[in-house]
Amino acid sequence: MVFAAEPDRLLASIRELIVNEEQQEIMAQAYQQLGFSLVNEAAVARRGSSPVPRRQGVRAMSIYERHTSKSFDQDLETATQLFLTMGDSVAVQVAKAIHALIDADEVLAREVINTDHDINNKELELDEHILLIVARRQPTASDLRLVMALSKGVVDLERIGDEAVKIAQMACQISAEGSAPRGYAEVQHLGNQVRLMVHNALDAFTHLNVEQAFEVMRNDGVINREYQSATRALMTYIMEDSRHVSNVINIMWVLRALERIGDHARNVAELVIYSISGEDVRHTDHAQVAKTVQEASEQMAAREATANQVLANEAPTYDEHTASNERKD
Amino acid sequence: MVFAAEPDRLLASIRELIVNEEQQEIMAQAYQQLGFSLVNEAAVARRGSSPVPRRQGVRAMSIYERHTSKSFDQDLETATQLFLTMGDSVAVQVAKAIHALIDADEVLAREVINTDHDINNKELELDEHILLIVARRQPTASDLRLVMALSKGVVDLERIGDEAVKIAQMACQISAEGSAPRGYAEVQHLGNQVRLMVHNALDAFTHLNVEQAFEVMRNDGVINREYQSATRALMTYIMEDSRHVSNVINIMWVLRALERIGDHARNVAELVIYSISGEDVRHTDHAQVAKTVQEASEQMAAREATANQVLANEAPTYDEHTASNERKD
Repeated sequence: MVFAAEPDRLLASIRELIVNEEQQEIMAQAYQQLGFSLVNEAAVARRGSSPVPRRQGVRAMSIYERHTSKSFDQDLETATQLFLTMGDSVAVQVAKAIHALIDADEVLAREVINTDHDINNKELELDEHILLIVARRQPTASDLRLVMALSKGVVDLERIGDEAVKIAQMACQISAEGSAPRGYAEVQHLGNQVRLMVHNALDAFTHLNVEQAFEVMRNDGVINREYQSATRALMTYIMEDSRHVSNVINIMWVLRALERIGDHARNVAELVIYSISGEDVRHTDHAQVAKTVQEASEQMAAREATANQVLANEAPTYDEHTASNERKD
Repeated sequence: MVFAAEPDRLLASIRELIVNEEQQEIMAQAYQQLGFSLVNEAAVARRGSSPVPRRQGVRAMSIYERHTSKSFDQDLETATQLFLTMGDSVAVQVAKAIHALIDADEVLAREVINTDHDINNKELELDEHILLIVARRQPTASDLRLVMALSKGVVDLERIGDEAVKIAQMACQISAEGSAPRGYAEVQHLGNQVRLMVHNALDAFTHLNVEQAFEVMRNDGVINREYQSATRALMTYIMEDSRHVSNVINIMWVLRALERIGDHARNVAELVIYSISGEDVRHTDHAQVAKTVQEASEQMAAREATANQVLANEAPTYDEHTASNERKD
């Protein structure tokens, strides 16, 4: 990203302007606005390092790039945690809704319907948090992609919650009419697969695993085909015996809801790949996605190797290169 | 928004630091990063005003707030235009898909299916544009809300496009089987209402009309009820005559797709209210939304009155208060 570099250059220029303590304080605020933080000599000295070399006539300072700003890290961490917690909640909602349907458990179905309110509140909370991060931290590059991915992904999670509610509503209706377990095998089967997809999409998000995310994308194709064949099977039931039309059609809505949940899991997986690789793979064929995924995996591996190298080389005491070693990206 | 005020205060402090030409240039870049732009005396003088008053010891400058930055304005304008163009495209897709179904016009249906590619590309283009705005312009307050609303809304538009494709696919299937215009009246009726909702949601976005947006939100309730009753009617058809089960069920999918389009139009309308009022009304009851809408309308009216007042009072020549009069929010 070209934008990531611009604040660096800009701040390097601005740094030349700082000539007294009061101005330092003002600029510290400016840096923070730009997502950077200042490190003053005194603090570095307290940690036992030699002083940072002075520039001619300008009070010396070293600038830690973003991510040594702890509160920015915390903000991103909180947003990601909110997202994953919400993800776990909707996954539980889906599981409960399917159980409620299969067991004709109206109490459990009502529980799912009533819990949707909490899911909605989680969406509002996360979106507010995201807005604050963008306004306050002005993220760029991969941070910005993560934030935008969370902002899009939260919609998918909320919709998964909505589909769980629809399944629960069908469960109530079917349990009230007390009949026709036609198509339950299909619901159970598709339900299991879709739940696994949601689980894996969230897992890929947690571990920044592009390969797992790609696997979720490919699974969506399988789900769609199985959904089609389950729907055809149900139509045959109706043609053979039209007495239970409304119940079988309700089961068809349930299958449709499951298929939609699969779509949303796929969307989340696409966002994982996007936030890691920078490639928007939403409308891309699988061959191209496979290439993107491989490149991203290789880059992740290389970055990890470098990080391990740095850790291995790190001296136990601070020397005058410490400040630059401590820079993280 | 508290954040809108912070850059102001910060920049006011930073302004005190500027003592020479070179530093001015560097700070001009800093201001731009923060979404502001500098106006130098020479330019103001060329427009015939008296020089901006000097501060003690500091070279005088006036800071125009955001939106006098023409390129920022253009960026927002371009994004909004892309959004509305994409909106028009999906509206056409929906109209064509319904026509294709009613007239059993397979050629038209195929056209809808093939055009989906363009819609998807528009989504990618707009999202890229949005990412650039956030990274480059670092918008705050109402600008940030607009950008986030566009980012969420583009997903709804794309999904409306997807639903149009589903309707077109059903049109192909039904025209191939060549039969059973059962439920066409319902499709026509619901289709007209949903198309109006999409049109009004986009219109509300164009004219920043919160009341029109609220009207769309309320219409969604009507659509949902009509969808329910249409579905019940179709179930009765099937029970009476199960020979055309698959066609009637296809029509039920079409009705479902129309109902989903209504949901997405409602989402867009909610985003209009959000971006104008700052209130997230997604999971809010109508009484509360009505209050938000009224307050937002009153504020818009007051702002318009002030703007007219300013225009009426504006002197033909610049005086020393010009700089502050020209500030826009």
